[in-house]
Amino acid sequence: MPITLKDVAAKAGVTVTTVSRVINNRGPISEKTREKVYRVMKELNYQPNEAARSLAKKHTKIIGVIVPSVRNPFFAEIVEHLEYYASQRQYKIMLCNSYHQKEKEIEYIEMLKTNKVTGIVISSRTEGIIEYLGTNMPVVSFERVISSDISAVACDNYMGGVLATQCLMDSGCRYVGHIGGTLNVSMIADERRRAFVDVCEKAGVSYEVFMTEESQFETMNYTDFLEDLLTDNPDIDGIFCSSDVIAAELIYACSRRGIRIPQDMKIVGFDDINVATLVTPHITTVHQPLRQMCSAAIDKIIDMKEKKSLPSRTTLSVTLCKRETT
Amino acid sequence: MPITLKDVAAKAGVTVTTVSRVINNRGPISEKTREKVYRVMKELNYQPNEAARSLAKKHTKIIGVIVPSVRNPFFAEIVEHLEYYASQRQYKIMLCNSYHQKEKEIEYIEMLKTNKVTGIVISSRTEGIIEYLGTNMPVVSFERVISSDISAVACDNYMGGVLATQCLMDSGCRYVGHIGGTLNVSMIADERRRAFVDVCEKAGVSYEVFMTEESQFETMNYTDFLEDLLTDNPDIDGIFCSSDVIAAELIYACSRRGIRIPQDMKIVGFDDINVATLVTPHITTVHQPLRQMCSAAIDKIIDMKEKKSLPSRTTLSVTLCKRETT
Repeated sequence: MPITLKDVAAKAGVTVTTVSRVINNRGPISEKTREKVYRVMKELNYQPNEAARSLAKKHTKIIGVIVPSVRNPFFAEIVEHLEYYASQRQYKIMLCNSYHQKEKEIEYIEMLKTNKVTGIVISSRTEGIIEYLGTNMPVVSFERVISSDISAVACDNYMGGVLATQCLMDSGCRYVGHIGGTLNVSMIADERRRAFVDVCEKAGVSYEVFMTEESQFETMNYTDFLEDLLTDNPDIDGIFCSSDVIAAELIYACSRRGIRIPQDMKIVGFDDINVATLVTPHITTVHQPLRQMCSAAIDKIIDMKEKKSLPSRTTLSVTLCKRETT
Repeated sequence: MPITLKDVAAKAGVTVTTVSRVINNRGPISEKTREKVYRVMKELNYQPNEAARSLAKKHTKIIGVIVPSVRNPFFAEIVEHLEYYASQRQYKIMLCNSYHQKEKEIEYIEMLKTNKVTGIVISSRTEGIIEYLGTNMPVVSFERVISSDISAVACDNYMGGVLATQCLMDSGCRYVGHIGGTLNVSMIADERRRAFVDVCEKAGVSYEVFMTEESQFETMNYTDFLEDLLTDNPDIDGIFCSSDVIAAELIYACSRRGIRIPQDMKIVGFDDINVATLVTPHITTVHQPLRQMCSAAIDKIIDMKEKKSLPSRTTLSVTLCKRETT
């Protein structure tokens, strides 16, 4: 027989209402009573049923997190930080890997709604899912732009692009390239490319822009693409990659062709995830303040739920981490 | 006003019991009725309340996953696969990062119990948590040994150690080292070390065993440790690392000292996670069949719940992936 509120109340010599108030932290309760109830709950090993409490409260303390793939080290870092800041506020994370498939994203959104999650942090595909998100539930898009009435957290991607490109210029590069994400997946990446083009134009330096494909992002395999890029553009002496993963693979591609880094080729990445310092040489990269971004995302979800705050956008500034590829 | 079962029943011209049966897939229902109910649910945009259903069923379709840190690429891969196989069976993942802290692990176990999860996959600390896991809930330990009455999934770690060490021998190494995990965290790592010692002894090759500390595992920072190791042991010409992360950092440490890989130093890793092919050169490593291991872990949890299967241990075999560090 499971222990019930009644058992706790009887043993503590208080009413069921009092026990319920203690558990839900509601109504006036003396510190003495609170302590007594907690002690009895512990003695009887009483566990409040979260499912039942969620039902009463009409939402759970669960935040849904949708990313393309947690295997990608960028998303692994943000999922870790999101879980950390959620747990600090007594919330849990339900993790969903969408593999960038629209059908899977919609399915996950429906599943999260059915589970009455408090809100959703989404860092995945952006087009065609607004209608499914609805307006009743707090949603924060992370490093993705969905629409003006949906909260967003991002870093200053334009500034990141400026810092990265300027770093290549300062290192003496004369013909530079930018490897960007797929245009249709992330409008955020556009900012990085726009900054790259602006800085190059202003400095009068020759440049090329290379766009990767969605399938490459998913498999994290850029081998053939990078081989071709280096073969077709032997004069490029500096490349700004839109992720540390691409930068890591570019180091490998250069090494296979005997291109020395940083002597013959300078490389700047983006993100500053652990990959940047796991590879040899360590990658010069643009540091995204992921901890602060994740903390802001969790705060937004909870504030929208509890304080009915309006949707808002937060853009955090970035810095350049000089390491060994420039 | 939210749509209720009653609204669906009225519009479909059936009883509430019938709608409930359709939703819960219980009792005899004609295909025609089933289709009609589904159509009406869709028309009314009715969402069954999972929290309420969970309450009735006394468990949710949620599997708790406890790992030290999803930021570590090994755990990122297993969390991705666990989520994939869970979602294939209509289950969700609640993710917990314990940072190897016993208190945090106990807190998470209590939280998952309170949330009536179906079961827990745990790949974190092993000592002193059995009592908290209890016996009522399916638990699978992943690459960790907890006790004989708790289900476990692991790869054949001894065989992996044999393959890795043999590979160093076959590459002509004459004085080899093994960098292992912390003894007290994972008994599994012992098997890799035991195999290393056995193969060296049998072949009459000189060897050293180096043990890392828990704090290094957590921060993924082995820089000073590896610097010292290379300084103190200039004659070692082959190292078997108990993870690809350590192998990646060893490549960096060698590079800084001008030690050429594989000419002067051969390196074999363990895990075969994406890091192995993100670094330069690509790492020769022992491939753990992580997909199959994760699939087995999810199956065990669900079978223990639904079919009352008994706890069992599954050990999957490993293979050697020869790449560029040997």
